Amino acid sequence: MAARLRMGMVGGGSGAFIGAVHRMAAALDGRIDLVCGAFSRDHANCQATGAELGLGAERCYPHLDAMLAGESVRPADAMQCLSIVTPNHMHVPMAVQALRAGIHVVSDKPAGISLGEVEALGEVLDNCDAAYCLTHTYLGYPMVWQARHLASRPEFGPIRKVRVEYTQGWLAQRAESGNKQAAWRVDPELAGPAGALGDIGSHAHSLAEFVCGSRMDSLSARLRSHFEGRALDDDGEILFTLENGATGSLVSSQVCVGDENDLTIRTYGTNASLEWRQMEPNSLIERRSDGVVLVHRAGVDKPLCEEALARCRMPSGHPEGYIEAFANLYRSFAFAIDGGSTPSALGLPGIAEALRGMAFLEAAVASNSAHGEWQAIKAPATGPDRKGLLA
Amino acid sequence: MAARLRMGMVGGGSGAFIGAVHRMAAALDGRIDLVCGAFSRDHANCQATGAELGLGAERCYPHLDAMLAGESVRPADAMQCLSIVTPNHMHVPMAVQALRAGIHVVSDKPAGISLGEVEALGEVLDNCDAAYCLTHTYLGYPMVWQARHLASRPEFGPIRKVRVEYTQGWLAQRAESGNKQAAWRVDPELAGPAGALGDIGSHAHSLAEFVCGSRMDSLSARLRSHFEGRALDDDGEILFTLENGATGSLVSSQVCVGDENDLTIRTYGTNASLEWRQMEPNSLIERRSDGVVLVHRAGVDKPLCEEALARCRMPSGHPEGYIEAFANLYRSFAFAIDGGSTPSALGLPGIAEALRGMAFLEAAVASNSAHGEWQAIKAPATGPDRKGLLA
Amino acid sequence: MAARLRMGMVGGGSGAFIGAVHRMAAALDGRIDLVCGAFSRDHANCQATGAELGLGAERCYPHLDAMLAGESVRPADAMQCLSIVTPNHMHVPMAVQALRAGIHVVSDKPAGISLGEVEALGEVLDNCDAAYCLTHTYLGYPMVWQARHLASRPEFGPIRKVRVEYTQGWLAQRAESGNKQAAWRVDPELAGPAGALGDIGSHAHSLAEFVCGSRMDSLSARLRSHFEGRALDDDGEILFTLENGATGSLVSSQVCVGDENDLTIRTYGTNASLEWRQMEPNSLIERRSDGVVLVHRAGVDKPLCEEALARCRMPSGHPEGYIEAFANLYRSFAFAIDGGSTPSALGLPGIAEALRGMAFLEAAVASNSAHGEWQAIKAPATGPDRKGLLA
Amino acid sequence: MAARLRMGMVGGGSGAFIGAVHRMAAALDGRIDLVCGAFSRDHANCQATGAELGLGAERCYPHLDAMLAGESVRPADAMQCLSIVTPNHMHVPMAVQALRAGIHVVSDKPAGISLGEVEALGEVLDNCDAAYCLTHTYLGYPMVWQARHLASRPEFGPIRKVRVEYTQGWLAQRAESGNKQAAWRVDPELAGPAGALGDIGSHAHSLAEFVCGSRMDSLSARLRSHFEGRALDDDGEILFTLENGATGSLVSSQVCVGDENDLTIRTYGTNASLEWRQMEPNSLIERRSDGVVLVHRAGVDKPLCEEALARCRMPSGHPEGYIEAFANLYRSFAFAIDGGSTPSALGLPGIAEALRGMAFLEAAVASNSAHGEWQAIKAPATGPDRKGLLA
Repeated sequence: MAARLRMGMVGGGSGAFIGAVHRMAAALDGRIDLVCGAFSRDHANCQATGAELGLGAERCYPHLDAMLAGESVRPADAMQCLSIVTPNHMHVPMAVQALRAGIHVVSDKPAGISLGEVEALGEVLDNCDAAYCLTHTYLGYPMVWQARHLASRPEFGPIRKVRVEYTQGWLAQRAESGNKQAAWRVDPELAGPAGALGDIGSHAHSLAEFVCGSRMDSLSARLRSHFEGRALDDDGEILFTLENGATGSLVSSQVCVGDENDLTIRTYGTNASLEWRQMEPNSLIERRSDGVVLVHRAGVDKPLCEEALARCRMPSGHPEGYIEAFANLYRSFAFAIDGGSTPSALGLPGIAEALRGMAFLEAAVASNSAHGEWQAIKAPATGPDRKGLLA
Repeated sequence: MAARLRMGMVGGGSGAFIGAVHRMAAALDGRIDLVCGAFSRDHANCQATGAELGLGAERCYPHLDAMLAGESVRPADAMQCLSIVTPNHMHVPMAVQALRAGIHVVSDKPAGISLGEVEALGEVLDNCDAAYCLTHTYLGYPMVWQARHLASRPEFGPIRKVRVEYTQGWLAQRAESGNKQAAWRVDPELAGPAGALGDIGSHAHSLAEFVCGSRMDSLSARLRSHFEGRALDDDGEILFTLENGATGSLVSSQVCVGDENDLTIRTYGTNASLEWRQMEPNSLIERRSDGVVLVHRAGVDKPLCEEALARCRMPSGHPEGYIEAFANLYRSFAFAIDGGSTPSALGLPGIAEALRGMAFLEAAVASNSAHGEWQAIKAPATGPDRKGLLA
Repeated sequence: MAARLRMGMVGGGSGAFIGAVHRMAAALDGRIDLVCGAFSRDHANCQATGAELGLGAERCYPHLDAMLAGESVRPADAMQCLSIVTPNHMHVPMAVQALRAGIHVVSDKPAGISLGEVEALGEVLDNCDAAYCLTHTYLGYPMVWQARHLASRPEFGPIRKVRVEYTQGWLAQRAESGNKQAAWRVDPELAGPAGALGDIGSHAHSLAEFVCGSRMDSLSARLRSHFEGRALDDDGEILFTLENGATGSLVSSQVCVGDENDLTIRTYGTNASLEWRQMEPNSLIERRSDGVVLVHRAGVDKPLCEEALARCRMPSGHPEGYIEAFANLYRSFAFAIDGGSTPSALGLPGIAEALRGMAFLEAAVASNSAHGEWQAIKAPATGPDRKGLLA
Repeated sequence: MAARLRMGMVGGGSGAFIGAVHRMAAALDGRIDLVCGAFSRDHANCQATGAELGLGAERCYPHLDAMLAGESVRPADAMQCLSIVTPNHMHVPMAVQALRAGIHVVSDKPAGISLGEVEALGEVLDNCDAAYCLTHTYLGYPMVWQARHLASRPEFGPIRKVRVEYTQGWLAQRAESGNKQAAWRVDPELAGPAGALGDIGSHAHSLAEFVCGSRMDSLSARLRSHFEGRALDDDGEILFTLENGATGSLVSSQVCVGDENDLTIRTYGTNASLEWRQMEPNSLIERRSDGVVLVHRAGVDKPLCEEALARCRMPSGHPEGYIEAFANLYRSFAFAIDGGSTPSALGLPGIAEALRGMAFLEAAVASNSAHGEWQAIKAPATGPDRKGLLA
């Protein structure tokens, strides 16, 4: 039952950031082997990256077409799944191509650059046997699962309010020219309709929905860009409602100088509240209306819900972090493939989250254009695996 | 130079909360003696409160009129200033009455229940020699002064963004019936147009303006009440702009179960940012764009700006808190009276802050009624001491 | 029942530190009036300090003798209690003098400079009607009382281990010459046999005994001085045992550069443990063997034991600190005088703590001289109020 | 330059803890492949563990002898290094066996069960070409390197004092019978002369030496066991001196109920101090004598020393933890093997640390037996790579 999953990667050459993170996350638990890659359109970069990773030159391909073709004729060791870590505009086309070739897909987020193309991806998925996972990394943290668990209990009371904030500072200066990471993220052709909101606000959106167990259904947005010629938002605030009747606020910014990767969520029921900060991810604070304050701590030795425990590797006090959370997605994905489950059954964000995320981005951009007018968020939901994590 | 200031108090009888805080704040530094009071319209409560405080029965008056009359005929030990700690609707009428009698006034906030009446108060002030202070307690904290100092330095860069949040949980349940504090705060006749926003959002507003050194000039508000029949807001979010071009967000809520008195401000310049949390008031975190993180700590032995040092009593590590911050307002007020300065010269919020605070509340209520439409905030500013702290 | 207590002070002139703290602590709750003082042997300093405090020149005395004599002939407003805030060597002689004159005494710690003289003080106390309180400030914190309460419950289990640390950095440089505070503290004639250990280690000792509800009965000490000619310890570690069978360690240092006033205690039972840090005094962390972690928070609205609640003034989230803890001692003292209770009945450290503290210091110095040999700590315990807080 | 290192493992079958951690640490960076193992003397467990890891049955050996023999005849894919994750008493014999076969060794700590056998290991190492690394995990944390760097700068001043504490709670109850991890750790035959001190105190010792850049040369120890029949210490305190003249204290306990994995080090120079807590490993606090407090934060985007940066994988705010620190040891080991450097040149603890660690344990046990008498710590130091990290 423990065959290792063979993975290819597109994107992630030298100079890229998130590709290396995906590779560490995939490697950590010994379930997945990276066997091939189209790491860069730059031949030398691609080959050097592959060599660095211990791959033979014949498994380093110039582009995805070549990789799909080359791997399809290998006898027993061909790629079974593809990790897509390119700029956003290539996510959907490449996912479609791979899925149609029967290759499972792990895609970086956001899913694509328009709701329309993600809907098309959904249709492809409905008609193929391959699986799709969207890497909303923060849903891999055990204490996020514990938060969702606690917030769903009757004693928490109905959720009234959620506050989610995701702030960074790295675009506080004009970073576009010298920084490859920054450059494509502020180009609408490559990044899609939203900047910081697509890059990190999309994580905040998925986290809020996941912890509250409810879909965001309307919003009012104010987005800003702080530099002449920076076409996409680098900063913004969103007020929203959830289907369960709660209201919320979301802050998304990459001009908050000095903020590192400051993702925080606070959820308030009628009887208790929860606070989780990604930068200290192993603690979850619960405050009850009777004045009791509890700190739930991550660790295999702790009284946590089953889903949280399954995402811990170590006893408490041995801090696990971002890479471990990311690895939880890859590990669950390998289990899903191996065991024939759908990814969402194993707690993985997939096409349902992809659709809701894109609908969120498009509604936010529309509201901002209309001076903050409230917009409904309508994510299409059809197909067998489209229920997603909120089913 | 060290005559002690003789103070009377209106409100603050047994069962009230903030009156006792004002008394401790006034007493702490040995500059002010409480000499008389009209603590309650309930005669027994008034007398018992006075006795408890060591006052003779003859200095415990049934109401303000009697106190002003009674004190006016005392030879040498009459009340010189009045502390007003009643529900909001009495703040302005009583302040006017006292000021006209030549009595200095310290008023709890918000200043009143409408911008109109506070404007009238301003006119009275323009035409009398007595001083007026509005107790925006949080402006008494030394690290708030240090934040303002750091944010004003050229190396901080222009301020781009401010995030201020003030959340409590005590109105998460329907507390109105059993709780005297809650009851008047949700009654528009007594509290004015705003509930939580008047009670604590007004502090958040003054703190944001003070730290940023700039006036709030427009806003969009969403306010909510979570109980049938609770006429005023218990929860809300406000997006705003400052005159200096910064944008901001403000959260004000008293239904955040478990939150105690959670006032936090974060200010972002182009080169550095600051974070201060009232619940750990002796630390101020500065994060710089070069990656350096500093923790500025309160204490007379610390490298702080002069205004911050003047508000510390102890070496670092001997925590000072809410009462000390409050006492800083009273101490400065005593110095101002003693030395003939205007309160604002000594860093005290006064009529200028009162006017801006009421204009803020009225704009927020108007915006909320108009489904979040942006509103300009226009605070009248005339008269000699109306410049206030942002002059 | 609320007559205000009239207090005199000896010591605390301009340039002194702790005198001003005592005055704020005494003033905070409006129970005590400072009516006279012998603030300094320097006449000008004494008069200036008194004037600054609003005292007439006739109540500012050149020394304690004069004050006792002068006050004894006042009709109705004479000093009733004396606050002693001089260097250590005067604590006992002055306390004895005041007690014999029927004046209640509040003394700064340590009680004196030898166990012998504190024993003599005990005999005086046994034969007079006046009360005596030793200001172990940290026993005024509500969460210290909550810790003691939790540690005493059966579900905590027998106490196995206690770790207490009190570190500061202000003697890391040779501060003696320029600094009045430093100068006398390192002079055995004025400070007694111990330096940092007497100044702050004595607090750590009393805190450990108080929280654990058990007397320290043996110890091994290593003390050091880091400067040529600094006659008393500025740094040390002590291993000890308690009568209840627990073992412990105590760190006391004033050369820990950068440490502010870093007093921490951790207590371990068989089933749970507690951690309290003076620099964030409003939280007390409890960790249970089943993995549950609780944060007990100070505040009148919190589920705390009666003794802790009685030492809170504000709802949670309005931080109270060092001065409030100190004021709790003065307030309890005023209540004890007013109500005829003994101070220890109201939770105040007195002669029993004074004796144990001096015995602790002498044992530590002896052990250090004997290269860390274990020493028994034997505090004499006779007389009606000598039971103290551990009775 | 990027051939992957082929690793075998002895120990680490199902039911063991640290073996899985070693495997994740080795896998994380894609430099090392696990190719074979003798995971358990229980055949079924060994095979099941191997299968779970994707190893063929022919690479799962019944014991080390068989593995060395079996691998020695493989053509091109044989094991190159061995990870030893057995109970302590097998560390040295197995390391010797592997080294003599030319296999590089990574050994869990402590190095062995007596100084004598570790000296013998040192002689083997002196006479072979294979490398040896002792997994003092905490030396893999970037902020530990940053601490060492800051403490070594002239502006830090000579180190006066170090306080190191390592406490856990999992032996607070009698865990020996039901818990495989606990059972061997309290058996002197398997664990060596020390219990908690060998298990975690040894980490505290190496951390203190490493951060201070100086060897521990004398100590006084008090050790205790809290259960009848528990032959080895579960709790203790050690006072010590370093060669550089600093004094220190070390707490090591596994009966501190509720403490998770609480390793903290504080180092005091004459001009600044440092504090690092393993449970929040990405922050290092520096406090300077001028009152400035800095928080150094981990991250590839932060101003850190070269050695710290080399041990970060992510930008700040993406928390890295225990597994990443552990992986830093494995990655450096792979680099050392690949590049022909000695491990200590790449910052890895080796035989020098092994010898000092064992000498420390034996001195502590001797001191405890002699009622705390001070003992010199003498670690033999000969041979080419015996300088170690303090060279």
